Amino acid sequence: MAGEFDLIRWIKAQSAVDAGDVARAAQVQTGIGDDLAVLQWNCDDLLLVGVDQVLDGVHFHIDTHAPELIGRKVMNRNLSDCAAMACLPVAAVATVALPQHHPQVMQLAQQLLIGMKQAGAKYDCVIVGGDTASWAAPLVVTVSILGRSGDIAPITRAGARPGDGIYTTGPLGGSILGRHLTFEPRIALARQLAQTGAITAMIDLSDGLSRDLGHICSASGVGAIIEAEQIPIHPDACQLSDRDHMAPLDHALNDGEDYELLFTASQPVVQSGITRIGTITADRQILLRRNGQNTLLKPLGWQHIL
Amino acid sequence: MAGEFDLIRWIKAQSAVDAGDVARAAQVQTGIGDDLAVLQWNCDDLLLVGVDQVLDGVHFHIDTHAPELIGRKVMNRNLSDCAAMACLPVAAVATVALPQHHPQVMQLAQQLLIGMKQAGAKYDCVIVGGDTASWAAPLVVTVSILGRSGDIAPITRAGARPGDGIYTTGPLGGSILGRHLTFEPRIALARQLAQTGAITAMIDLSDGLSRDLGHICSASGVGAIIEAEQIPIHPDACQLSDRDHMAPLDHALNDGEDYELLFTASQPVVQSGITRIGTITADRQILLRRNGQNTLLKPLGWQHIL
Repeated sequence: MAGEFDLIRWIKAQSAVDAGDVARAAQVQTGIGDDLAVLQWNCDDLLLVGVDQVLDGVHFHIDTHAPELIGRKVMNRNLSDCAAMACLPVAAVATVALPQHHPQVMQLAQQLLIGMKQAGAKYDCVIVGGDTASWAAPLVVTVSILGRSGDIAPITRAGARPGDGIYTTGPLGGSILGRHLTFEPRIALARQLAQTGAITAMIDLSDGLSRDLGHICSASGVGAIIEAEQIPIHPDACQLSDRDHMAPLDHALNDGEDYELLFTASQPVVQSGITRIGTITADRQILLRRNGQNTLLKPLGWQHIL
Repeated sequence: MAGEFDLIRWIKAQSAVDAGDVARAAQVQTGIGDDLAVLQWNCDDLLLVGVDQVLDGVHFHIDTHAPELIGRKVMNRNLSDCAAMACLPVAAVATVALPQHHPQVMQLAQQLLIGMKQAGAKYDCVIVGGDTASWAAPLVVTVSILGRSGDIAPITRAGARPGDGIYTTGPLGGSILGRHLTFEPRIALARQLAQTGAITAMIDLSDGLSRDLGHICSASGVGAIIEAEQIPIHPDACQLSDRDHMAPLDHALNDGEDYELLFTASQPVVQSGITRIGTITADRQILLRRNGQNTLLKPLGWQHIL
């Protein structure tokens, strides 16, 4: 029978052989295996920090989804938050609460960690610590991420101004068919956009366009008008529509977990893959224009009910 | 029916009225409510980061323990990690996975957050972000903490050398009777000790003396000899012994969750409340000396079985 510290030894051994970690040794003074990790921080960099969790039965299903994909998802959700702020990922700490009665719990833990680690490594984000536990309940994985501004001022949700264009970086809807596990965080694109100086507010589409646009409008003290015909609809939204007879547009507006960027810009952004879908208004309501008619756009995207 | 974003609004409102947060405004540029929090980092400070989780049925029992105490525990576990490294807490991010079927889930969430926040505020640690979810499973709370070195080099587990004295900052054992929820992190004491320059390695006693000493010895590549008669035994260990007929010494060695500091020092430390319990040796085994006889000290402290 294996224990927590067998797993931690395995994790430390994994880290030691990773060339990427060695390259970061100057920044990470003490990594996995002490009470806290110790990093040197570059004076010129603002420090960004956040956390996201994934829960069995809510964000994934352990009987359906490969552990590597679950690990990848929780890391990528955090990397997508870095994209939303236009910062560069640096380091992460993770927790796993493992289901005791899983038939291969050690293997599950290792595969989760491999998934997290590989997803992070792709964007130079190294796992420097964590906490492992087991219990008689479903799997929980969390990742907390540290990012650095790297010469680009962070883009918050609060800078949208009336007249700004509203844009999305890709087609939306139907992510539940698989993209919610396999998306790529839009870090490079976010940095390139932010460097233009034209981006006034940004968020990643996790809760759904109708709700996430509300977050930008609320934080910025503005409203918006969205052109229904301009919203790029993902083929998955159409495929899902065939099954559930909900309009593809409603899937694009409300499904969430697209992990594309939703941003506002004070200058026109003309770039392949990026679509203007509306305009920020001074009036604080959010409207959907469709066939020449305006209706209130209700935030039907995801929220946890308490 | 309330939702996740009602809770987030409440949390933001709580933060806005907190004078402690206002005082830190220069450091926290963007707090709760964006994709990531943004902090300015002092060039002279090393950055320390870690995470701890608490699980219903493992670290607390939701039917027995007040939510404020649960919130306090998870924050204090992290603050105790700061003590173990002799660093100063700065900021934290938290996750809660709330049990959907709890009769008063919104109140539960609020009380958890109040507990976390008050425990943090006591040591100038402000909550700057988090993630809230609900699910059909037991409560999970995690806190990730950021600390700063503040003119004191972090004390790792790796610096113990043969001949160093081994010390603990308080009596051990029987914490399950209540202290595991109400302990105070030894931050001020850790800083004062580290400032002497004599402390070579340190850890907080969470997994139990027999196991946590093993962590120091393993990281430092040394062994130890512990004097059974010198170990300070908490009255709780004696009380528990009356019930379960396990020796009070075994409770002190193995129970864990004492959250006292275990440290090694190259110079004698003579201070009220601090007890020398043994000596670091070159031979890599850990021995317990009792009535003039040495036996191997097995790591019977807590570990999660995988």
